[in-house]
Amino acid sequence: MTPGRFEQRRERALAAAREANLAGLVVTPGPDLAYLTGHTPPPLERLTLLVLAGGRDPVLLVPELERPAAESAPGVAGLELASWNDGEDPYALAARVLRAGRYAVNDQTWASHLLALELATADCLFVAAGRALPPLRAVKDDDEIQRLRSAGRGADEAFGDVVRLPFAGRREVDVAADLDRLLRERGHERVEFTIVGSGPNGASPHHGASERRIAPGDAVVLDFGGVAGGYCSDITRTVFVGEPDEEQRRVYDVVRAAQQAAFEAVRPGVAAQDVDRAARAVIVEAGYGDRFVHRTGHGIGLEVHEPPYIVEGDETRLRAGMTFSDEPGIYLPGRFGVRIEDQVVVTGGGAERLNEASRELTVVA
Amino acid sequence: MTPGRFEQRRERALAAAREANLAGLVVTPGPDLAYLTGHTPPPLERLTLLVLAGGRDPVLLVPELERPAAESAPGVAGLELASWNDGEDPYALAARVLRAGRYAVNDQTWASHLLALELATADCLFVAAGRALPPLRAVKDDDEIQRLRSAGRGADEAFGDVVRLPFAGRREVDVAADLDRLLRERGHERVEFTIVGSGPNGASPHHGASERRIAPGDAVVLDFGGVAGGYCSDITRTVFVGEPDEEQRRVYDVVRAAQQAAFEAVRPGVAAQDVDRAARAVIVEAGYGDRFVHRTGHGIGLEVHEPPYIVEGDETRLRAGMTFSDEPGIYLPGRFGVRIEDQVVVTGGGAERLNEASRELTVVA
Repeated sequence: MTPGRFEQRRERALAAAREANLAGLVVTPGPDLAYLTGHTPPPLERLTLLVLAGGRDPVLLVPELERPAAESAPGVAGLELASWNDGEDPYALAARVLRAGRYAVNDQTWASHLLALELATADCLFVAAGRALPPLRAVKDDDEIQRLRSAGRGADEAFGDVVRLPFAGRREVDVAADLDRLLRERGHERVEFTIVGSGPNGASPHHGASERRIAPGDAVVLDFGGVAGGYCSDITRTVFVGEPDEEQRRVYDVVRAAQQAAFEAVRPGVAAQDVDRAARAVIVEAGYGDRFVHRTGHGIGLEVHEPPYIVEGDETRLRAGMTFSDEPGIYLPGRFGVRIEDQVVVTGGGAERLNEASRELTVVA
Repeated sequence: MTPGRFEQRRERALAAAREANLAGLVVTPGPDLAYLTGHTPPPLERLTLLVLAGGRDPVLLVPELERPAAESAPGVAGLELASWNDGEDPYALAARVLRAGRYAVNDQTWASHLLALELATADCLFVAAGRALPPLRAVKDDDEIQRLRSAGRGADEAFGDVVRLPFAGRREVDVAADLDRLLRERGHERVEFTIVGSGPNGASPHHGASERRIAPGDAVVLDFGGVAGGYCSDITRTVFVGEPDEEQRRVYDVVRAAQQAAFEAVRPGVAAQDVDRAARAVIVEAGYGDRFVHRTGHGIGLEVHEPPYIVEGDETRLRAGMTFSDEPGIYLPGRFGVRIEDQVVVTGGGAERLNEASRELTVVA
């Protein structure tokens, strides 16, 4: 990543703010700061703040002890660096940089920082960037798509590895530990989640992994991912311990058809919510509409969840380069769940999958 | 943890809010929610909100797909559980639960959630909990201290392991990977950071770990920790690759004396800033005052940084059961840094360390 790319991103962000009649943007640590500066401190109680505003150079205010890290960030060229010491009031310093006006603030800014900025700046108003601006990071460039593809491949390979291991008789946490190890072996620098929902636990979409021993006859939802090359992976497959019964097979087929229908609905110009509708129609038609208890997908990039959201009410028009998950599911409380998830990228003429692990019904031992 | 303990914590939090003339507290995912309910979803764009207010049962609003996870949280007894579906407006639901008044909001709440709550509730005002209330989690009970001690012991053991490995000729990232592995072997379920700052990199207090090859004559700052049994560890030792030179030895001795002076200043009733002053006095006296570029410490518990902060301006009176770091340092840009950090707990008559790894000057190969 050249410094010039960071400057282009900052100019684009500022142009979007102007377009929305804002004086500028303020950005605290997290994916937006990483995207705009390459500086990636953890979000903490000490204030780090990027101020982008028209008519002046961008300012990055950092704690003194993080100044060396900020100075070595790849996108720091063209930024004015200011620092504050423990014991000083960083909000008063920020107030001196912020002229009167309305600013977008990145969604993940801590309430404590936002409220302190509001108190320190009588004539500044802050609005949520996610509401006030089009999503900054939704359309990926070629390098980003390549990174997402590569992260997806690592997750695909980890799935290919894990289904060769025994499931019956082992605990969910044991399989989760396998997935953690396999993702790292397959090029992930960080593992973010390893959901193993066996039998009735699969009916809880955000189940983690429990002490439950996996048993013959179980459906097992495997939803896992992490970070490779700075970008996220996120894949779900549902496998069966021994041959599935008739209803398990039917539910699997419905989810797979819904996932395919959503995929086929993706192309530039389509509204995000229409992709959700395409998946949902298949599941409603099959009589499981009230058991598909979540949206069809979420954007992915530097974050595992980011705009656009593939959900009723999100009218974002899809554009080439947008990347998001396609992950319908059916959840039967007390019994089992099935979810199938791929990441997809919008292309000029439609879409491509970023995951190629088999979607065929898979039986494990 | 019995459900009763969570109820006691909620009652204590609400009493503190009343004391501060607040209508109640609102809490989104993070350590405060974990402390008050045992529910530990990741902070995401979907709203999860605990509302604690006088005269009514507490309400926990969750996304429908996380309802099963919320229902199985250890502190959910006594909470009214409400859920919302993807596509619904969770802020409108929250507004129906929130009566008019001033509420404390946990510091880590995302700006997007806070600003949407402000828009949805015309007659509610939100203030940062960290500013409006005494710290909720600062005084630990016996079980929490036991967990912190146990996490600290794991970090101590990892230090004992790592100094037996070779340093010279290996990259910082290699030693960081060793620390990651050793922390897990020593009982950590999660590793949060593994700083390896060799030579000039040690002069950047929040350096991570780079490709730099460690060389004979380097001072190496090792600052690492994670989570064991739900509670955090955080230890720093500075080691020398071969015999240190005279200045390295002098700086080490000053930092060690400062760390000891801070430790000896800790007892109930003392202000947090006085502990900082005790460490700083030693370093100023030795002529390195302007090279001690951060506060002396931070509280530790469910979070690795939490109140109280051992910093000039923090007048919190220490109480038995408070736990925090004692970690002065001296940083010589372009050359090297030295930091020594232990966690300590305030006792009835003074303090005890939660880390016992050797503070003697340590030479590695």
